[in-house]
Amino acid sequence: MTTGYVFHHAYLWHDTGTSAGLLPADPAAGIQPAVHIENPEAKRRTHELIHVSGLLRELLVIEPRRATMTELLRVHTPAHVQHIRTQSDRRGGGDAGDGYSPVGHGSYDIARLAAGGLLALVTAVADGDITNGYALTRPPGHHATADTGMGFCLLNNLAIAARHAQTVHGMGRVAIVDWDAHHGNGTQAIFYPDPTVLTISLQQANCFPPDSGWTHENGIADGTGYALNVPLPAGSGHAAYLHAMRQVVIPALDRFRPDLILLANGVDANVFDPMARQMLTTSTYRAMTRLLVDAADRLCHGRLIAAHEGGYSPFYTPYCVLAVLEELTGTTTRVTDPFATVVAAYTAEPLRPHQQDVIDEAAHLVSRID
Amino acid sequence: MTTGYVFHHAYLWHDTGTSAGLLPADPAAGIQPAVHIENPEAKRRTHELIHVSGLLRELLVIEPRRATMTELLRVHTPAHVQHIRTQSDRRGGGDAGDGYSPVGHGSYDIARLAAGGLLALVTAVADGDITNGYALTRPPGHHATADTGMGFCLLNNLAIAARHAQTVHGMGRVAIVDWDAHHGNGTQAIFYPDPTVLTISLQQANCFPPDSGWTHENGIADGTGYALNVPLPAGSGHAAYLHAMRQVVIPALDRFRPDLILLANGVDANVFDPMARQMLTTSTYRAMTRLLVDAADRLCHGRLIAAHEGGYSPFYTPYCVLAVLEELTGTTTRVTDPFATVVAAYTAEPLRPHQQDVIDEAAHLVSRID
Amino acid sequence: MTTGYVFHHAYLWHDTGTSAGLLPADPAAGIQPAVHIENPEAKRRTHELIHVSGLLRELLVIEPRRATMTELLRVHTPAHVQHIRTQSDRRGGGDAGDGYSPVGHGSYDIARLAAGGLLALVTAVADGDITNGYALTRPPGHHATADTGMGFCLLNNLAIAARHAQTVHGMGRVAIVDWDAHHGNGTQAIFYPDPTVLTISLQQANCFPPDSGWTHENGIADGTGYALNVPLPAGSGHAAYLHAMRQVVIPALDRFRPDLILLANGVDANVFDPMARQMLTTSTYRAMTRLLVDAADRLCHGRLIAAHEGGYSPFYTPYCVLAVLEELTGTTTRVTDPFATVVAAYTAEPLRPHQQDVIDEAAHLVSRID
Amino acid sequence: MTTGYVFHHAYLWHDTGTSAGLLPADPAAGIQPAVHIENPEAKRRTHELIHVSGLLRELLVIEPRRATMTELLRVHTPAHVQHIRTQSDRRGGGDAGDGYSPVGHGSYDIARLAAGGLLALVTAVADGDITNGYALTRPPGHHATADTGMGFCLLNNLAIAARHAQTVHGMGRVAIVDWDAHHGNGTQAIFYPDPTVLTISLQQANCFPPDSGWTHENGIADGTGYALNVPLPAGSGHAAYLHAMRQVVIPALDRFRPDLILLANGVDANVFDPMARQMLTTSTYRAMTRLLVDAADRLCHGRLIAAHEGGYSPFYTPYCVLAVLEELTGTTTRVTDPFATVVAAYTAEPLRPHQQDVIDEAAHLVSRID
Ligand SMILES: [Zn+2]
Ligand SMILES: [Zn+2]
Ligand SMILES: [Zn+2]
Ligand SMILES: [Zn+2]
Repeated sequence: MTTGYVFHHAYLWHDTGTSAGLLPADPAAGIQPAVHIENPEAKRRTHELIHVSGLLRELLVIEPRRATMTELLRVHTPAHVQHIRTQSDRRGGGDAGDGYSPVGHGSYDIARLAAGGLLALVTAVADGDITNGYALTRPPGHHATADTGMGFCLLNNLAIAARHAQTVHGMGRVAIVDWDAHHGNGTQAIFYPDPTVLTISLQQANCFPPDSGWTHENGIADGTGYALNVPLPAGSGHAAYLHAMRQVVIPALDRFRPDLILLANGVDANVFDPMARQMLTTSTYRAMTRLLVDAADRLCHGRLIAAHEGGYSPFYTPYCVLAVLEELTGTTTRVTDPFATVVAAYTAEPLRPHQQDVIDEAAHLVSRID
Repeated sequence: MTTGYVFHHAYLWHDTGTSAGLLPADPAAGIQPAVHIENPEAKRRTHELIHVSGLLRELLVIEPRRATMTELLRVHTPAHVQHIRTQSDRRGGGDAGDGYSPVGHGSYDIARLAAGGLLALVTAVADGDITNGYALTRPPGHHATADTGMGFCLLNNLAIAARHAQTVHGMGRVAIVDWDAHHGNGTQAIFYPDPTVLTISLQQANCFPPDSGWTHENGIADGTGYALNVPLPAGSGHAAYLHAMRQVVIPALDRFRPDLILLANGVDANVFDPMARQMLTTSTYRAMTRLLVDAADRLCHGRLIAAHEGGYSPFYTPYCVLAVLEELTGTTTRVTDPFATVVAAYTAEPLRPHQQDVIDEAAHLVSRID
Repeated sequence: MTTGYVFHHAYLWHDTGTSAGLLPADPAAGIQPAVHIENPEAKRRTHELIHVSGLLRELLVIEPRRATMTELLRVHTPAHVQHIRTQSDRRGGGDAGDGYSPVGHGSYDIARLAAGGLLALVTAVADGDITNGYALTRPPGHHATADTGMGFCLLNNLAIAARHAQTVHGMGRVAIVDWDAHHGNGTQAIFYPDPTVLTISLQQANCFPPDSGWTHENGIADGTGYALNVPLPAGSGHAAYLHAMRQVVIPALDRFRPDLILLANGVDANVFDPMARQMLTTSTYRAMTRLLVDAADRLCHGRLIAAHEGGYSPFYTPYCVLAVLEELTGTTTRVTDPFATVVAAYTAEPLRPHQQDVIDEAAHLVSRID
Repeated sequence: MTTGYVFHHAYLWHDTGTSAGLLPADPAAGIQPAVHIENPEAKRRTHELIHVSGLLRELLVIEPRRATMTELLRVHTPAHVQHIRTQSDRRGGGDAGDGYSPVGHGSYDIARLAAGGLLALVTAVADGDITNGYALTRPPGHHATADTGMGFCLLNNLAIAARHAQTVHGMGRVAIVDWDAHHGNGTQAIFYPDPTVLTISLQQANCFPPDSGWTHENGIADGTGYALNVPLPAGSGHAAYLHAMRQVVIPALDRFRPDLILLANGVDANVFDPMARQMLTTSTYRAMTRLLVDAADRLCHGRLIAAHEGGYSPFYTPYCVLAVLEELTGTTTRVTDPFATVVAAYTAEPLRPHQQDVIDEAAHLVSRID
């Protein structure tokens, strides 16, 4: 079993500007210039840990390429692609659509390199060069819809990868699991009427986008039943997420029998993340990944490709990703989560009834999958 | 009505080292050198916003002084004070006791200047120069006990201030309200057997320190009933905190009839804070401060002094503190919370039953205060 | 004798973007997003040192105001002022004219507050509230000409101050000394034909702007003789600058008999500055300021106002400015230049012949002043 | 022809602490905590540019190993190695000897990995896997002597490499060229009595260490004539350095007929470097490297190994190193020096007589080499 790894330092050069957290600097409104919360630091440190821990030696490094226009247009409208390009060409950059998604000068090419990194992994899986893989990409993608960027996302990398798997490599059924703390609304919208792509999203309820990701969002037309959501209450942790994986995600995958599993590996549901209020630890990411790896082994020859999505804690993100990668490769490194002790007590919470209710509601919908 | 304001740039020079989040850098263990989460940035930006917003013109700036040994020893053991001093004298600094509380080279004097800033405010209140005041100090204090530092805290600034108010200024009864996301364990421990100082702490349950701040921690000996805790579940927000203020904090203050109210203004229960999982917004801090200001007006001639404690979001902390200060001064600036829109949906959660249970439990204890 | 001090944290909010040194980020051209060399850090640290050293207590803090349109138009063309405003109104900001002068969103108001800081000092001197003063302003000004910004400068703060002194406060003759490492080309150009404003600039020869600041640039028409330049070779240090002060600057001031001396206090000729190749130390700035203070005492009742210009070393700039301020106030603080030892050897160079030649050439022109 | 490239992200984890420029933070002395000038940023950005420019694809990436105790002791005393280890084991780190050379916690292993990176290159050259190579290492090495660290240097990486080449790979004569802006005093001292290792150092005269690197330092005993120095005056630029290369370095290499050329590629003589006052550009580094590559081709089958030494401009260092690497590989990338225009005028200075005198003096000593 070989695990592929896509990374490029150009991903770190995607420029989100002198924003203060989420907002463009505006001194007159009292908004001091600062760094955008979606800056390169967490990802840079993640790549460095992968190297320093020794894990890099266990991975097959795959150089990304830029996704072509044909590949982008399988998912996005020409107007949206053109909009990103225009914003990217401007000296000071611009925004991908919702005012919260900075496009830096030159970010169009970087976004294409991010999408293309996933395409390279899909092809490597199809060719049998790797069994599974991880793309440490930037900018993220799961909020981007067919016709607009949003939530820091420019192009929907995973959706483009799913269509590539289907169109070029003949993988008929693709499942996309999204455990980013925020709703994978873009991915869901793109495949909403499509029964060949199952989307399952676990997120903090009503966080971002607002009023999105409720359980009743279950697909439409032929796609009915092929969109699943588990909107977990703020403050959910290890027990709730593992229960959701076991009651919803894995049963859904088992019913769907995908040819390929894609994972939107946002790690912003971790206990230190500034952008959500969940309480996952490296143990949670490890256990959830283990479940997915097992499902992939059982269902689709181990084919599992993860794309990096959110994750805004510069100091904790690296360990969360390392845990995911260790499970993908089936190895462990000499680096253990140094924060495990300090968060042990409060992340050991049992499953709470108000969390279980949400999970049960989602579990009832699994049987619609055929 | 005049509001005092203590700040000194030396507070920003307290050096927490090249730590990664909470942990000292240790490359061999995979811990990359970085910045400590308790670094100057959030406080620096807060002071800058106070200036740029124009609010500084409404405040009486009070220069801090260093707390004397006599003043420190009213609260701390000689051994602890000496320990801080010894660690501070070392070229590379050291730790205040628990391994999570960096003492920088020279931090002893800075910590004394932080404690002394609160003493200056207490004296100004006693002299009638100000009605209330805010000390934007660093390092924080509320976790420090009589004989050890912990949780980033070196000296318990507020406890030293309370004893100063009693000893020097003849204020018999002092109430300390602590809405930092973490338990004000140090302050509680210092006054646990003492019925002249009421401590009330609202925090995320079982967060930090672990297994501390439960409702049953209610004081001991003569102090029984004079320590109150509201250990709110992770994910609690505006509704829960306001309910706790109205059901526990304000009734307790009304029964206690303090001569002075001290506030441990940790703003790390805000919705973007990396160190806790609560969901407060500037509106919450504004409303909670309003309740305290009203109580102070009703009970003790408006005497209310706030010390800055936790608050780790560089971009959101400034607005939380500005809201507190606007309520203390009774003015508003031209700066409105620019993040209000983006968090409106998910911070509008109603009070949940599992939150209400905790609050009710604490409310039952209020009648023990005499 | 009282020394005024102008500073506002809004100066630090002037946003020079994600530039790499001098250049806008451009990933496609291999230019990684980074910080602009003219970022707030050196000035922020300077202000903090002024506070922590205790010097702030010796200064009369004067709150800046925004320069009015009338005041700006005494120096700048309406088209230039409008250009800055338009660039500033754009969400992503723009440039002040030469492609090296970022205008952040909202920088127009900040630039007016910088110019207005100097106006406040001029008025305070005229009113006798202070004898001399220092404006720790940002953005800088001395490269800005009547009709364009350049070299990080938006508005020519000192030129606006000179005209204010003449027009409003009846000071007939104003001398502007500029020891920034780069040529004060903007100031020189504005007053080139004007014998009522003497400009004297010491700089690294041919550094910035290229081919500007030669000795033969000596004024025009009625202003002939009233512009002086000392284009010192790269590598010039303490001996060369002091010689230039004694042979050129002071004799020129003595002949000119100004009613007010303005100082463009760029400290980027210091030995650690990345933007020039000169070798000054705090001792040099101290000695040069001493000479100017003495001249001001002798010639114009001590009236001397310094504006902060360049200075890009975050760690050494603060000590250079502290030395200037200590001389202005006639006090010393407990802080001594901690870098003095490490640079002692190579900054002790004697005056070299090729440096002396340049100074002699400039000295010959002093007699043209009447 | 193949060019080897050694880099490891662990190099970036060498922790120089919260120093202010060169000095440990000391708030009581007015020294604000900040970043050390020898921090990872310039090297990190250099590696990123090597990747993003596409040059990485032209290089043979060689994984470094840790130098063994035997290898270290060929150059250093046991006491010095033990000292570094002891300092490194301390939680807060320490210093390598002179008070200006921080040893971070864990830096001992990183320093061994830096030295070992060069050993890996030497072996790869000896094995014929590569013709030449570059080690982008950290911490630097050329100031470290046999028994002490100094000037940010812990272990003398190049000296260890030279001894390895001689002892293990039978390369009898090794030449070490050092164009770092500071004197390669450690390397010179280690080989001062040894005629089998020729050291040639070009530096800013009397800069660091003070009173070191004069022309008269020419070797001792059998080594007489085998140490050369060109102490160029501050402000020297392209013309002076190229003249020194042509009049001193290349003739010396031609007489010495080395089996291997090592290059101490400090790029801190560049025109933007804060730690020296020289004026080199990427064109200079390109031309100097070209001369060395040609000499290596002529003299020793192209065997040329460069170690990264100083270079403190975060924005300009990457382009200087890219120029060196392009010449080593004989290729060019799409990235051209974006700063070329802005420094064109003042870096075009002709050779000055006081520079030529120094070069001539050094050139006279070349004939002593046999
Ligand atoms: Zn997310
Ligand atoms: Zn806290
Ligand atoms: Zn300048
Ligand atoms: Zn150097």
